Amino acid sequence: MRELLCELLRLFYDKGWVSGTGGGICAVEAPGRLLLAPTGVHKERVTPDDLFVVDVSSGEVLEAPRNAALKPSECGEIFRAIIAARGAGSVVHSHALSAVLACDRASDDAIVIEHLEMLKGIPGLSNTDRHLVPVVENTPREPQLTADVERVLGDERFARACAIGVRDHGAYLWGEDIWEAKKHTEVYHFLFEAVLARGGSR
Amino acid sequence: MRELLCELLRLFYDKGWVSGTGGGICAVEAPGRLLLAPTGVHKERVTPDDLFVVDVSSGEVLEAPRNAALKPSECGEIFRAIIAARGAGSVVHSHALSAVLACDRASDDAIVIEHLEMLKGIPGLSNTDRHLVPVVENTPREPQLTADVERVLGDERFARACAIGVRDHGAYLWGEDIWEAKKHTEVYHFLFEAVLARGGSR
Amino acid sequence: MRELLCELLRLFYDKGWVSGTGGGICAVEAPGRLLLAPTGVHKERVTPDDLFVVDVSSGEVLEAPRNAALKPSECGEIFRAIIAARGAGSVVHSHALSAVLACDRASDDAIVIEHLEMLKGIPGLSNTDRHLVPVVENTPREPQLTADVERVLGDERFARACAIGVRDHGAYLWGEDIWEAKKHTEVYHFLFEAVLARGGSR
Amino acid sequence: MRELLCELLRLFYDKGWVSGTGGGICAVEAPGRLLLAPTGVHKERVTPDDLFVVDVSSGEVLEAPRNAALKPSECGEIFRAIIAARGAGSVVHSHALSAVLACDRASDDAIVIEHLEMLKGIPGLSNTDRHLVPVVENTPREPQLTADVERVLGDERFARACAIGVRDHGAYLWGEDIWEAKKHTEVYHFLFEAVLARGGSR
Repeated sequence: MRELLCELLRLFYDKGWVSGTGGGICAVEAPGRLLLAPTGVHKERVTPDDLFVVDVSSGEVLEAPRNAALKPSECGEIFRAIIAARGAGSVVHSHALSAVLACDRASDDAIVIEHLEMLKGIPGLSNTDRHLVPVVENTPREPQLTADVERVLGDERFARACAIGVRDHGAYLWGEDIWEAKKHTEVYHFLFEAVLARGGSR
Repeated sequence: MRELLCELLRLFYDKGWVSGTGGGICAVEAPGRLLLAPTGVHKERVTPDDLFVVDVSSGEVLEAPRNAALKPSECGEIFRAIIAARGAGSVVHSHALSAVLACDRASDDAIVIEHLEMLKGIPGLSNTDRHLVPVVENTPREPQLTADVERVLGDERFARACAIGVRDHGAYLWGEDIWEAKKHTEVYHFLFEAVLARGGSR
Repeated sequence: MRELLCELLRLFYDKGWVSGTGGGICAVEAPGRLLLAPTGVHKERVTPDDLFVVDVSSGEVLEAPRNAALKPSECGEIFRAIIAARGAGSVVHSHALSAVLACDRASDDAIVIEHLEMLKGIPGLSNTDRHLVPVVENTPREPQLTADVERVLGDERFARACAIGVRDHGAYLWGEDIWEAKKHTEVYHFLFEAVLARGGSR
Repeated sequence: MRELLCELLRLFYDKGWVSGTGGGICAVEAPGRLLLAPTGVHKERVTPDDLFVVDVSSGEVLEAPRNAALKPSECGEIFRAIIAARGAGSVVHSHALSAVLACDRASDDAIVIEHLEMLKGIPGLSNTDRHLVPVVENTPREPQLTADVERVLGDERFARACAIGVRDHGAYLWGEDIWEAKKHTEVYHFLFEAVLARGGSR
């Protein structure tokens, strides 16, 4: 699982979704134990030994990498909020430009996605659905972002969303395990690009 | 042939044509035997052992992969309809955004392609031809899509097309063997991108 | 040199310049002997043994690959015309969409390129020059294209161009040896993309 | 460090930032000793043995590669000006189209960047900052460019910029060491692309 997380970071880097040391990833390794990538490092160069193990509930670091210069991802609190609210097994944080631009096109507080077969890639959705991805405002400091993330996770309009956009910033995307998180990450980036190419509405 | 199918899935994944577990591929391995990729899996990770062998006429599974979790591609029925109508040896199902957007630009029920040397990549066409690629409406359920696919396969206006667009969804592309299917897949995606870049008409 | 030609075909394929079996390459191996890629094959899969050796002056095949199914590139005549007129050591034929679209933007019979440092990549040019790349009309048959190519090669306005655009088709690009041909191929594709992004004029 | 410089050139080449032999890189190997890539060569093919060592202060070549055909990068003077003014440990010269186009969008003499989380990738900046990247005019000859670079390096408005755009040409980007230079190169190219996608202002 550690190697797979690193492989996905390399894959997402190649796609331009975690460039400039941005972005991140985590996955529940075993009940209560969350594997978490370090912050501020070139994500495509993270090795299995660089991962932290943190407590899913408290965020406490259970095991730190030998490299003492590494610090756990600043997304940890948001990752854990998503896991707590949705039972996710893995969460990806994307810094893709397409995510930023899709948030620019949000109507009110949501990216509206419809008329796309790729919607079937999200559990419970059909190509005939009108899917809303919540967008929260970016903040200079992490704690306020977590509160907004928790708020939209509890909003019934977004009950089926497996993604949250962060304006000017990127997106969080998740699945019940790493493979579904990878799938949803690819699906939503496709959807974001489709929304952009269509000019925000068909 | 099994390895080549997997290699092409990796190639198409790198180009963004089968992301998010979408898309698919098949090829006639021997008379009556169709090699078919599984559904719902990350297409770039399909291995030769993951392929199904189905009966070209009936769609019956002749040989299933050892991995019992795998299910044959839901495109199987459409793949077989194309093989029956056109004598194709291999069919690709693309989820490329360029295919979706080219369908958006369709005039009536066809993508109109002209003034392009790349048209010579399709048998019987010259750069001076006006080529029509049929577009069928997307459906929540497979059977209706198959009926529409069979209808356009029988439409004289589309007699030379080796592709069918599916609105909001992607495209089916085929050739007399795997290599020609690969060629046509590349040719049509180029043509779709050209149509988009030119704004739908020259 | 054979391996390098194949490597460049793979590189250009990855960039989308020779997709769908389109495009081609040649290089003068020794006085009078021209190494020439075969036609109608997937260019990224050409191996050193697949290359033809043709007489630079007459176009006669001096050495054919063992694989009797291969035929020499149909660009051979144009390649030889460019070599004869400019003393090129290597010529690339690109099917890039950017080349097609830059020809769409041509003023009269030339792509106008200016205000770009990358112009210095072409011998004798400065960033302050206004550089003209000739554009010839595409033809269903090769011979007429060769005549037009020879005409623009003799046009004083295009004396410094190391590229010829072919409308709806792509471009020919050359250099005094393979390395300069690679450089010019990259430089001109950058210039084409810049012309497109700037909307044809600054 | 030599191998890393070559690896970064290959990475930047794959991203299209140093194509057509353009662009360059340098890094301070030890006090006073600057590793410098050669000029006019295909940057993705530079090997550790191809690098020059020059005196950081004087620019004098301390060690030349065995390959006598190689010449030190023409960016050397600008590289050293940036190192002198900012204490940079590594400087990258990009020929990316996104850098050229972002300069086209400059207001007066600066690219204006705001409303982007990725700004946090630059030391001292927050996502709420309005960041100015200076743009200097391109020149046919190097010396005048150096003077302009030194001028903007001393301009208080650009005190936090780790990049300088050169109109019609590209950009210089730097960091306190190679890894930070890589990070800033990726961050600024993301920012340039965001500015372009947003049409120059939000």
